[in-house]
Amino acid sequence: MSIKNDLLLRTLAGEKTARPPVWMMRQAGRYLPGFMKLKEKYPFFERVQNPELATEITVMPLKEVGVDAAILFSDILVIPQALEVEVQMVPGKGPLVPQPIRSAEQVAALPEVDAADRLHYVMDAVRSTVKAIEGEVPLIGFAGSPWTILCYMVEGQGSKTFDQAKAFCFSQPQAAHQLLQKITDVTIDYLKAKQAAGCDVIQLFDSWGGLLSPEDYRHYSLPYLKQIAEALAPNTPVILFAKGCWYALEEMTALPVKALGVDWTITPQMAREFTQFQVPLQGNFDPARLLSPIPEIEKMTRQMIQDFGPYKYIANLGHGILPNIPVDHARAFVNTVKSFDR
Amino acid sequence: MSIKNDLLLRTLAGEKTARPPVWMMRQAGRYLPGFMKLKEKYPFFERVQNPELATEITVMPLKEVGVDAAILFSDILVIPQALEVEVQMVPGKGPLVPQPIRSAEQVAALPEVDAADRLHYVMDAVRSTVKAIEGEVPLIGFAGSPWTILCYMVEGQGSKTFDQAKAFCFSQPQAAHQLLQKITDVTIDYLKAKQAAGCDVIQLFDSWGGLLSPEDYRHYSLPYLKQIAEALAPNTPVILFAKGCWYALEEMTALPVKALGVDWTITPQMAREFTQFQVPLQGNFDPARLLSPIPEIEKMTRQMIQDFGPYKYIANLGHGILPNIPVDHARAFVNTVKSFDR
Repeated sequence: MSIKNDLLLRTLAGEKTARPPVWMMRQAGRYLPGFMKLKEKYPFFERVQNPELATEITVMPLKEVGVDAAILFSDILVIPQALEVEVQMVPGKGPLVPQPIRSAEQVAALPEVDAADRLHYVMDAVRSTVKAIEGEVPLIGFAGSPWTILCYMVEGQGSKTFDQAKAFCFSQPQAAHQLLQKITDVTIDYLKAKQAAGCDVIQLFDSWGGLLSPEDYRHYSLPYLKQIAEALAPNTPVILFAKGCWYALEEMTALPVKALGVDWTITPQMAREFTQFQVPLQGNFDPARLLSPIPEIEKMTRQMIQDFGPYKYIANLGHGILPNIPVDHARAFVNTVKSFDR
Repeated sequence: MSIKNDLLLRTLAGEKTARPPVWMMRQAGRYLPGFMKLKEKYPFFERVQNPELATEITVMPLKEVGVDAAILFSDILVIPQALEVEVQMVPGKGPLVPQPIRSAEQVAALPEVDAADRLHYVMDAVRSTVKAIEGEVPLIGFAGSPWTILCYMVEGQGSKTFDQAKAFCFSQPQAAHQLLQKITDVTIDYLKAKQAAGCDVIQLFDSWGGLLSPEDYRHYSLPYLKQIAEALAPNTPVILFAKGCWYALEEMTALPVKALGVDWTITPQMAREFTQFQVPLQGNFDPARLLSPIPEIEKMTRQMIQDFGPYKYIANLGHGILPNIPVDHARAFVNTVKSFDR
């Protein structure tokens, strides 16, 4: 099926477009009143596992804020669930893994699984969403990086520093690498199934990459991202967003990815310097800056585009949108990009 | 009083020393069995406010791990307390400000205070510690950066992202700057009193600077750090550690500080490139890496010194030591630096 608004796909293919495409990380989320209604009615993983609900949530921001791409409503922690590791979502607290992985024995005991089968509800949601979008915009599917998934599986919950996860890697490196490889294998199967079900683009989130030193990133994250990117690259453009990993931008440029996401702690100019215009960049508006008055949002957004400009650029936030952003502020961000005149 | 082990002071003065000085952020803390005993007996702020306890805790790591400097056991949140903003320390949870600052009215209502008087117990602890150290090593006093203090005063608790604090700055910038200025004024008085009481070095912690964009850092943090550094510089060497602020290293080099701390997400080589050897650097061993086997700690520590080398360098961690670090691992880190042969 050809896609009407193909700005994102053309940018990922390296083409010059009349204006940059725009979408927002977590755009199908808690700042939308429609989402909040569903949140009151259905627990988190029910929204993820019910294809109709996931579809409804995924298409919401298309109508509400008019973004140039949809990103499937789902969660990176479906991967541990596929590996039979229980993950709960505790309201107001975030993810909880009641029995975190802490030993080589636990890693060895993880089952061999058919990810596409275990996570069939995600593929159902992809197919249902493709129908609902009716070819208007591309659909992005996503997964967490193996390092970031390990963080949750080992730490057992969210954390500022994921000390337990790092302790596991640094005191039991062999077990850590075995776990990373298992996550990688399952993630590749999962993402290939998402491709087959109809995702046009895949984004990889390395949300906790920025906790590692450049040297440790090279051992504990990059090789696994490389395997995933290589497995998907022949069929689908891949965007890699590794938060806080400015120091690895140069190395990430060498991966078979079609764009690199950057957060707001790096200037567009610096990001271009590290990546030398070899790959499109995506980002990097500080989500908290969407709380500024609208005229300031408009001014900062235009400045951001100019600083990244002129091409090879996907406008986005530097991380997920916050729950307390007024919808008209999000819309102001999107509309400023859409009205940008090269 | 002249100080026997003056490696840190000479390094801060720009002199070449036989080996780099070494100390560890949070060295007087939860990884020490002696500290844990006191922690069981006395609540957090009692340990801070009782000069005898603060002294006992401050000198502990001198005997236990043999560092080249003492850093006063205290807390950055004594500043809001001086401003009559209640701060509790909730065991297992961290700081809590029951009535966080959210409005211009609340900022305006903060009292004019004599910080040295309000925080007299800190000066008592400094004097008591100076006596206890008997001129063996220098004593470091510290404060949080105004931006970091604002984060806690506005957010009301610890956070990964301090969204409320940023929301306050970006939606009420005038009130935010008034608050930052009030914190700055009190901090300057407080640190001058600490100088007068006997601190040989002052370290400023900008723990949450890395949450800001380079542009916002230039507005919400740097100007206030500059005021503090300028006020203290004539009398005491200042070390500035701004976690996650690699992007501001070049600008920080222009401040009247005698050293800049860096975390482990920047390579020593990059940190030298940004600062051009104009100022001594301090850091940057990943605290979680102290969980590696001892031979690996020794190897990585030697590599770190070589990479920062050869002079203008203070060996330290890239952030505070973790509670679960075995004391002999901390000792291995310190001893490796002390036995380093240029």
